[in-house]
Parts: sequence; C-alpha cells; structure tokens
Amino acid sequence: MTLAYPHRHLLAIEGLEPPYIADLLELAESYVLLNRSGKTQRDLLRGRTLINLFFEDSTRTRTSFEIAGKRLGADVINMSVATSSVKKGETLLDTAVTLNAMNCDLLVVRHGQSGAPALLSQKVSAAVINAGDGTHEHPTQALLDALTIRRRKGRLEGLTVAICGDILHSRVARSNIHLLTTMNARVRVVGPPTLIPAEAARLGVEVFHDMRAGLRDADVVMMLRLQRERMAAGLVPSSREFFRFWGLDSEKLAAAKPDAIVMHPGPMNRGVEIDSAIADDPARSVIGEQVEMGVAVRMAVLDVLARDLRRNA
Amino acid sequence: MTLAYPHRHLLAIEGLEPPYIADLLELAESYVLLNRSGKTQRDLLRGRTLINLFFEDSTRTRTSFEIAGKRLGADVINMSVATSSVKKGETLLDTAVTLNAMNCDLLVVRHGQSGAPALLSQKVSAAVINAGDGTHEHPTQALLDALTIRRRKGRLEGLTVAICGDILHSRVARSNIHLLTTMNARVRVVGPPTLIPAEAARLGVEVFHDMRAGLRDADVVMMLRLQRERMAAGLVPSSREFFRFWGLDSEKLAAAKPDAIVMHPGPMNRGVEIDSAIADDPARSVIGEQVEMGVAVRMAVLDVLARDLRRNA
Amino acid sequence: MTLAYPHRHLLAIEGLEPPYIADLLELAESYVLLNRSGKTQRDLLRGRTLINLFFEDSTRTRTSFEIAGKRLGADVINMSVATSSVKKGETLLDTAVTLNAMNCDLLVVRHGQSGAPALLSQKVSAAVINAGDGTHEHPTQALLDALTIRRRKGRLEGLTVAICGDILHSRVARSNIHLLTTMNARVRVVGPPTLIPAEAARLGVEVFHDMRAGLRDADVVMMLRLQRERMAAGLVPSSREFFRFWGLDSEKLAAAKPDAIVMHPGPMNRGVEIDSAIADDPARSVIGEQVEMGVAVRMAVLDVLARDLRRNA
Repeated sequence: MTLAYPHRHLLAIEGLEPPYIADLLELAESYVLLNRSGKTQRDLLRGRTLINLFFEDSTRTRTSFEIAGKRLGADVINMSVATSSVKKGETLLDTAVTLNAMNCDLLVVRHGQSGAPALLSQKVSAAVINAGDGTHEHPTQALLDALTIRRRKGRLEGLTVAICGDILHSRVARSNIHLLTTMNARVRVVGPPTLIPAEAARLGVEVFHDMRAGLRDADVVMMLRLQRERMAAGLVPSSREFFRFWGLDSEKLAAAKPDAIVMHPGPMNRGVEIDSAIADDPARSVIGEQVEMGVAVRMAVLDVLARDLRRNA
Repeated sequence: MTLAYPHRHLLAIEGLEPPYIADLLELAESYVLLNRSGKTQRDLLRGRTLINLFFEDSTRTRTSFEIAGKRLGADVINMSVATSSVKKGETLLDTAVTLNAMNCDLLVVRHGQSGAPALLSQKVSAAVINAGDGTHEHPTQALLDALTIRRRKGRLEGLTVAICGDILHSRVARSNIHLLTTMNARVRVVGPPTLIPAEAARLGVEVFHDMRAGLRDADVVMMLRLQRERMAAGLVPSSREFFRFWGLDSEKLAAAKPDAIVMHPGPMNRGVEIDSAIADDPARSVIGEQVEMGVAVRMAVLDVLARDLRRNA
Repeated sequence: MTLAYPHRHLLAIEGLEPPYIADLLELAESYVLLNRSGKTQRDLLRGRTLINLFFEDSTRTRTSFEIAGKRLGADVINMSVATSSVKKGETLLDTAVTLNAMNCDLLVVRHGQSGAPALLSQKVSAAVINAGDGTHEHPTQALLDALTIRRRKGRLEGLTVAICGDILHSRVARSNIHLLTTMNARVRVVGPPTLIPAEAARLGVEVFHDMRAGLRDADVVMMLRLQRERMAAGLVPSSREFFRFWGLDSEKLAAAKPDAIVMHPGPMNRGVEIDSAIADDPARSVIGEQVEMGVAVRMAVLDVLARDLRRNA
C-alpha cells in the first residue's frame, strides 16, 4: 500500500491524483472481503468520534457511513439538523465551533448548498468527508461506483461509460465524471439539452441527446435519479414522457455492449429512469453491489483520513 | 435448552410449535436475571449489525430492541423511514437490496402493511423479526405477554385470558390469541361487535359483547389500546362512551378472579380503555413488568436467530 | 477527591453545597485533559444504559451527553419524544414505568415544563440529570459555564459576572445565578424590566436596566439567547431594536474590564444578542470553550452519579 497522506479531507474527486484513487480502491477491496467474512476491525477507530452531520435527509448514505464507522470501532453520533438548532438561527460556522469543541475526529457532512463541507473544513480540526453538497460533488458515491465497475470489468481505463438522465442537478454525475476521466475512462453524458449543464463540454465528456446513440457500445450504463425537487415548477417532465425518451428499457439497452452493466445510485424511480425488468436483472444490474461497495469505500476513506489523525496524535 | 434452529425469522406466532415457544420463554427468563444483575453478554452478537427499520413511529418498541441488541454487543442502526427515501419513491424491495448489500445480520421491521416483514424476509439474507405489521401480528409482544403471565401465574395452560376492547385493529390481540391458544390457555375476546373481527370464531376463542360476562373468573385481563387512527372518521367512539362500556374500572374488574392480573401493551389511553386507579395498582397491574419482559424476550429472540447465523458462518 | 454521594440525581443547582460544586468542577477538569488526549475511559460505564429523553429538540445538548456517555463506555439510547408516543396520549409517569422496566441507569431529561425531571426522578430507579426544564434550571450548563470561567480567571469567588438579556425565560440564567452566588461571585442581571423576573431581587443579584451600567468593571459578560418562542405575540421585540439597547457590541463591552471574557450558551442569534465581531474575537469570546467544557462536565456528572449506582449494585 503506497497510500500516503496527501489530503486531510475528502471534499471532492476533482483534483485527486490517479494513484491516490487507485490506492483508495485497493484498500476498499480489502474491506469488501472483511465485511463478507462478518469480521470487524474495531481497533482502527477506537476512541474516535465520527459525527454524521446531515442538513438533508438521506437514510441510505447516513446508514452506510454509520455502519462503516461502527465496524472500525468509532463512536458514531448522528446529528440531523433539518429540525434542529438551524431553526434557532445558528450559522454553519457556529456549528463548526461546536464540533471542534466536542473533539470530533471525523465529520461526514451532507448539505443542500454546494461548498458547505469545504467551508466547514476550514474551520474544524476534524477530517471532513463530503457526503453530498448541493449540485457540486458526492465523492464517496463516485468511489463506490468506480469500485463496482472495476470489480466487474477488471479496470476503469479505456471503458466507455454512459451517464444518463438528469446530469444538470446531479452531484453524483459530477463526481463520476471527474473520477472516470481522471482514470482514463471515456465518459459520455446522455440526456435532454435542458438537463445537461453548459460546462459539460469543458469536463472532457461527449454529449449525446439521444439514448441509442449515447449507449452505443457502452461498457457501463449509469442511470441517475430524476431530481424533480430541484426543478422549477413548470419544467418538471412527466414520468411517462421522461421514461419514453430517457428511461432505460431493454430496447434502449440493446445499443450498449452485450455485457454492459447497469448502475443507479438509488433511490430509483422505477418506471421513470429505469424499467423494473432491467433494475432487477441480475445479469445486468449491479445496483445492490453498489450499496455493498459503499460501505467498503467509506471504511477505506475513514481509515485513510484517520491515519492523518493518528500521525498528528 | 433443547431449542433447535427451526426458524430463520420471527414473522408471526401463528405456526410456532409449543416447545419452541416454551424454550424461547425459558431463555428469556435467563435474560431477565442477566438484566437485573446489571450485566451484559456482549460477545454474543459482537460484530453483528442489527437494523431497526421502522416505517411507523414507535419509540417504545424501537428502544426495547435497541437496548436488547446493544446488551448483546450488536452494532445497532436505527432507520426511521417515514421521512426518508420512501418519499423519494423507493420500493420495499429496493430497501431489501440495500440492507443485503450492507451485510445486515438481524433486521427488525415495523410496517403499516400486513405482510411487509414476510415479503422482506424472502429478499434479505438477514434474520427478520416482525415488530408489528398492519393489523397482522406483533409476535414479540405476545411472547413478552406470555412471559409476564407465566412469571405471575406459574403457567399458561388452563388459564382464562380475557382480551378486551379494539380487537379488530389489534395485531397485539392476534399474536396473543395464537400464542395463548397454542399453549392451551382459554382465550376470550371482549368488545363491541364493530371491534371484533369476523374471523374470531375460527381462531378458537370465545366472543363476548359484555365486559362483566367476558371477565367472569378470568385469570388475566388484557386491555388493548383503542386505535382511533385506524378507524373511519364517522366510526370513532367518544372516549366517555367507550370508557363507560369497555373501559376497565374496579367495578368491571370485580367480575374477574380476585387475583387476576391486568395487562396493557402501552401506550395507554387513561380514562378510555383503563382507569388510572387500576393501571397504577401494584396489586393488579403488571404493565411495567411487561416492558421489562419485552427487553428480555427480544434478547432471547435475537440470541436464537443469531445462532442460525453463527451456524452458517 | 473528597466527592461523596450526597445526591442521587442532578435536578438543579439550587441547593447544592459549595464543596460538591467545587469537586464536580475538579473532576470535570480531569476529563478536559482526557478528551484532549483523545483517550477514553470505557470501563467506567460499561454495561450501563444511558437514555437521552428529549421532549424538546436540542441537537447540541443531546449530542454533548451522547458523546460524554459513549466516551465512558455506556450504551446510549436517544428517545426523542416530540413525534412519538406522547402523541398517542402517554403520560410522563407511564414513560417512567417504561424506563424503569428497561433497567435504565442514567436518564437525561429535557422537557418544556418546569419540574418534569424532578417528577420523573421520584418514579424511576435511574439517576436523573435535568438537561433543561421549562424556565426552571439547566444545571449542567451552569457547571460548564463555571468551569469555563474558572479556567480563564482562576477562581469564581469575588468575580463580577453580568448576565444580560432575556433573563425572564432563561433556565440558563437561573442555574447560573444559583451556582455563582453559591460560589461567592457577584452576579448582576442586565436587561429590560419586561425580561427580568420579579424574583430577581430575592436571588441575591443586582438588577440593571442599562447595559453600560450593568457591564461596568465586569469580569465576565454572559449573554443569553433571546427566546422569542416563549414570548406572547405582541411582546416580541424587533431584532434591530433589541440589538440597539441590549445587544453586545464593542462599544458596550468597553464598560467591562479590559480582560473581561464573553460567554453565550448557544445557539446565538448573531446581530440580535451579540455582534459577530465580538462572538468571533478569540481574545474575548470563550463560546467554543464552553461547548468543550460541556462534554467534560457531563462526563463528570455521569461519573459521579454512576458511583452511587455502583455502590448499590
């Protein structure tokens, strides 16, 4: 393991070097095996305090980090702040002061505003992990997607990955684009012009406005959740119309390679982005495996960031 | 302890054999003593992940399972899904995929729809415990009630148990009827015709529409919560009227045996189903003891179901 | 450490003897060092069940107790009852019966009604810690404030402490007044007549209705949160008007001693009770240190109350 300590936090995939990503995936691989064996490694974070600070609801991601932290022996504290002191007018920076004072070691943050975890990271002594911020990034999701692809395809380099649907509002798409292009995969984004951000071209991806063209010979088809809650009222597409043009069904999937895998970060809108027959097809869908890789990747990230804490202790 | 491994899950009391129930109660008895001693037995579930998946609020039951799991050393994760990814349109089966992928070992499920835990149990690798599903069953409640009765009366067989009030909407009543008839107690259901299900006769119980008649010479009087939230708007009885006919007071209780015990699964509507003087009478009420037995019974159930996990490991 | 076992619970500061307070602060001091070292002392409460029973939201206080309990090895269970069985009509005393039956050892209670923790303490076998009850007391807040002052000023005796703003609705003010007068500090309360309780004179404090007069030569300036949610609709002051007369800015602070420290229990309403420039001034503000002292003080309180449990075991 050559993994050194180049980063105190994990705020974004953008800017990470290929060897760092590769080492994280290698380490996560070992945690897949540990989890499957039913063992734990509680000495690693024993006595460490991990706080899950969620300004947006997310049972799935919060639970994944909670399990990861507990399997490594950390004390895990959930702070769900939607219904809490935020209402009393506390600023993000006051929250940072509080967390520092509580000797928090590892801080997992989800926030509706892009950049909030980075802002917090400048004010806290804890190692900060971005668990999704606005439309910016969701780095552990991209890492778990990469681990899933690598286990199925043996590599990332040279693969053709089609990311489909609501790219505009997707931090998952943004983190995946950075990771996959950094690791020399060919990335396409596929969706209606209204849901592709103007910056797409700059990110080194190919843009497609037709599913069949976008999926042609793809190794990986990555569907995204349609984020209606982030769209202006008049611009929300109907489920039926969206599915007709952009929903993944067997007919559209036929354009991809015969052994192409299908991914979705969850939670799925079945019949909107994806047909249930595809989502549940064990020969194509790796959606369950993505969740499993999520716990392993988060253990790897906690492990690596805690090394820095141990070094400084 | 002859308890073998006949069941991977605990989904219902219906269908359990008398020796299995008797062994569970015996094991729970040992956990009563452990809890009273202030000791724990953390090696039993060390490294195991228990997820409390509650689609309906229930602080009391959720806490009871959380304490039971922690006393046996499990990592306990609470997933309250009323305000969570369910809103984003995730199906129960997608939740199952997620739980499997997180290597969940023991899954405690409460759900508003009858049969949801059974459906989940077919899709997850975890051992599933039904913590209440719709109007179907609430098996650990029946087990804790049985343990409470057995400790007070020395046996279940041959006792006369009157279950009173809103039988129709009560999964607690249904599980108790199955358990008590299986263990050869005589069970009566007592309530207004509108709150007694048509299937009652088929379940081997006697039906009474008068409290004094129903309680005559009973050894155990088990009151139920009036579940107004499950009734159609026009059919909700007034508290005053309900109490007059069906609420337990000392005058109605006088029909039962002089040493009859009074039970309630909680939370109580005082002055509706039960008079406070009865609920708080230490000579009659065993309501607090029921809660204590709840933790012990849940420890026993987790213990037994985890043996199967250990055997397969 | 001369600290004996005079109290089974911590319900209020009023009535505590000076040596007991001094010993608690001394013990808390040792936990400050433990926390800063990153170590824990998990044997102390191993096997003990601590329940955080919060009838009012408070992420900050709940988290502080949760961290304190976990660092000492307790099983910590959060019961947030705003959205729970309270809705089903359960009384406080039924909750007590439930907690007893679950063999809860340490019970931390926050409740909107003054006296609720004291009422619970008469009904439960657990040691009860008041985490804020109505407008009555918030004893651990006063202890953490005292620890913060003592560390900065070397003593409490003889110091002049100005408590400013909404005294009327503040349990923090009430606990601080009791503690500081008990320890022979000179306490002033400073605010508009409408926000000073009539009983103030009786409590051995000086009353000021002018900030500059009240802060003159003070060693400690303790600001309080303006509790609009407890005020009648027509009586809520505007933020601008309140800040002009009662908000702490550098001009008003100039009346205090040059080395006066500034405190706030959080969460702050910046620009209402306190100017951001003061709140964030490391030379004056000890607001972050208060939070840190909070965890240490709560560990000390849990430690001391658990000794009584151990003695009785």
